[in-house]
Amino acid sequence: MFHAKVRITLRKSILDPQGKAVEHAIGTLNVGTIHDVRVGKFIEMKVDVQDEAGARAATEEVCKKLLANPVMEDYYIELEKA
Amino acid sequence: MFHAKVRITLRKSILDPQGKAVEHAIGTLNVGTIHDVRVGKFIEMKVDVQDEAGARAATEEVCKKLLANPVMEDYYIELEKA
Repeated sequence: MFHAKVRITLRKSILDPQGKAVEHAIGTLNVGTIHDVRVGKFIEMKVDVQDEAGARAATEEVCKKLLANPVMEDYYIELEKA
Repeated sequence: MFHAKVRITLRKSILDPQGKAVEHAIGTLNVGTIHDVRVGKFIEMKVDVQDEAGARAATEEVCKKLLANPVMEDYYIELEKA
């Protein structure tokens, strides 16, 4: 079994208004200069497959078909043996 | 300057209905057994501080005051020298 951690981020070329709003809010906190804020999704799941290649393939299929919008988003998969 | 990557997840003890909905949707894809799906947030930002300790402190303050709800959520910070 593997523990999959998936990060889904907007592509660099896509404007991120939510990130801009967070950046503006951070500006009111006086914690120094923070910029280029971008907000994405983080999804964890347990994948019941014995080999790493199979677990990666299953997770990629879930990302492509369900979790990420391939036009606007990129996804990164990290697998840990559980 | 540092590139901060922040993962915000619901605490283990908190029910995640969004994760349950995703898990149910994954069940219709025929990609094998995937369970314990939990959905969180992923936030990237550039922190203009020279030393790593200072960058971590600034990012933690942003997490505590703005990004995470400390009652229900945990946050994990990764810093990369940019």
